[in-house]
Amino acid sequence: MTALETAFADAAAAGITQQRIDIGGLHVNVARFGNGPPLLLLHGWPEFWLVWRPLMLHLGDSFELIAPDLRGCGDTGKPTAGPDASATAERHARDMFAVMDALGHASFGAIGGDLGAYVMQAMSHHAPQRLTGTLYLCTPYPGLGHRYGQPGHLIEVWYQYFQQLPWAAQLVGSSRESCRLYFRHFLDHWSDDNPAVFADLLEAYVDNFMKPGNIQGGFDWYLSSAPNRRLWLEGRLPAKPRIEVPSRFLWGRRDPLIAPQWSDRLGDYWSEPSIRFVDTGHYVHVEAPAIVAEEARGFFGRLENATRGG
Amino acid sequence: MTALETAFADAAAAGITQQRIDIGGLHVNVARFGNGPPLLLLHGWPEFWLVWRPLMLHLGDSFELIAPDLRGCGDTGKPTAGPDASATAERHARDMFAVMDALGHASFGAIGGDLGAYVMQAMSHHAPQRLTGTLYLCTPYPGLGHRYGQPGHLIEVWYQYFQQLPWAAQLVGSSRESCRLYFRHFLDHWSDDNPAVFADLLEAYVDNFMKPGNIQGGFDWYLSSAPNRRLWLEGRLPAKPRIEVPSRFLWGRRDPLIAPQWSDRLGDYWSEPSIRFVDTGHYVHVEAPAIVAEEARGFFGRLENATRGG
Repeated sequence: MTALETAFADAAAAGITQQRIDIGGLHVNVARFGNGPPLLLLHGWPEFWLVWRPLMLHLGDSFELIAPDLRGCGDTGKPTAGPDASATAERHARDMFAVMDALGHASFGAIGGDLGAYVMQAMSHHAPQRLTGTLYLCTPYPGLGHRYGQPGHLIEVWYQYFQQLPWAAQLVGSSRESCRLYFRHFLDHWSDDNPAVFADLLEAYVDNFMKPGNIQGGFDWYLSSAPNRRLWLEGRLPAKPRIEVPSRFLWGRRDPLIAPQWSDRLGDYWSEPSIRFVDTGHYVHVEAPAIVAEEARGFFGRLENATRGG
Repeated sequence: MTALETAFADAAAAGITQQRIDIGGLHVNVARFGNGPPLLLLHGWPEFWLVWRPLMLHLGDSFELIAPDLRGCGDTGKPTAGPDASATAERHARDMFAVMDALGHASFGAIGGDLGAYVMQAMSHHAPQRLTGTLYLCTPYPGLGHRYGQPGHLIEVWYQYFQQLPWAAQLVGSSRESCRLYFRHFLDHWSDDNPAVFADLLEAYVDNFMKPGNIQGGFDWYLSSAPNRRLWLEGRLPAKPRIEVPSRFLWGRRDPLIAPQWSDRLGDYWSEPSIRFVDTGHYVHVEAPAIVAEEARGFFGRLENATRGG
């Protein structure tokens, strides 16, 4: 039994189920757990549904948790074999609305970080009425601006460019050893250089990324978002209306990728953001699932009460 | 016989000799060919002496050609096993002066590109009286400034950051396949995306980089030059006097890494630079050795005559 199979078996034993949902040309794998108001959990890169397991187990008594693998990731399909530049945030957003349609949820809350945070922003611009609230973890957003590509930060963001190259996935996946070296870096370094955070999951992650197409499937995001990212860094991204969906931000104080001080422009992009800094790196949901669970109960609970009150 | 052994045997059959020179704590491998005034040939990354073979064969009737492997590269030693942040341009420059001391050359001309061009600049600041003239190919210099790290150029320079990471050499060298994928990119892409340029040498390059320590040895330059590079990009590099050594520049019109228009500030760093644009990519010496040979004869010949005349 591989480490990944063991992780799936452990999740199944805890009551987490896997479901395959067809949304027209793409089968989406969704992990589900719990009962209550629906909460969509949107993973980042280099992640898949498994990253949400601790949070799911914390929240299953109060919410229906829906953790899909995004297009190209985990056990969700990948429409093309080679590099695919069409996996934009807007495309992922349409996928996710289709998944929630299939599950019969007209409106729902969402939690996401990293790539998932981009998807939540695209969903918020496209169909805000479907989102009751959004809880962001480690949030890339246009307000990072040129700071995200400044000279002192290039040692952190080089992978966003390397991963656009057509041979990059082949190099990283050329052996299990090369795959482990690569992903271990992002798991450990972004966890405030603490290898203990992902130690139990590392081999399951390697198993996941050694599945055919899964490295490229993740890299597709970097290819697909490249034009937008350049406009950000150059300060030329066309302005959009501020997001009105109620939004809460948890931000790792020691996130090496997205510095906490760069949250200073959230107010330019969200109408009423509230923020809490947490003593973690980038993976708030893995490093401090109890805090995220507490925040989710508070934030979505207040929204629920406000709706009932109104 | 490996491809590299064949390349060495071919070079030996043509009369190119290999010599090991000890310069105190480091043995330097030097390829030598021809007779006449001494010319030091300084390779770049990802190169070693072999990259000069075409030019050496062109110029051997008029010059004594001396092509060392720089510290960490080819068959030259590497003082430390792991990443070494001390292999700065100044350190390479001291190595090269020691090599030329050992060969009895008080003064000499030099040709170099890429990393070799950084080393020539350091040599020019440290002991200009030892250099009769310098012929630059594909020249990184502080006048590139922030342009070298601008958002649209990060797809070209990401490797300068990746290669600083302590596990990068292990990933690239994890198999012959991964090694080939990586170096082929830089050889082909920088040759104006023309795989024919290095086709005959590719396997010899892979042999070279699969030698223990050779990938890290080349990456050490990026670790060692990182503080300076950041100051460049930020426009905070302390000013140095302009270089007075007579200098000629050949610049590939289609160099994807160092754009020809970025030669516009050479006059701020050299007192009398002259430039010729050549119809090549980054590897002018490999893509157009006959032009480099013609330029070397003209440039160093004029300097020789001027010295005799004076």
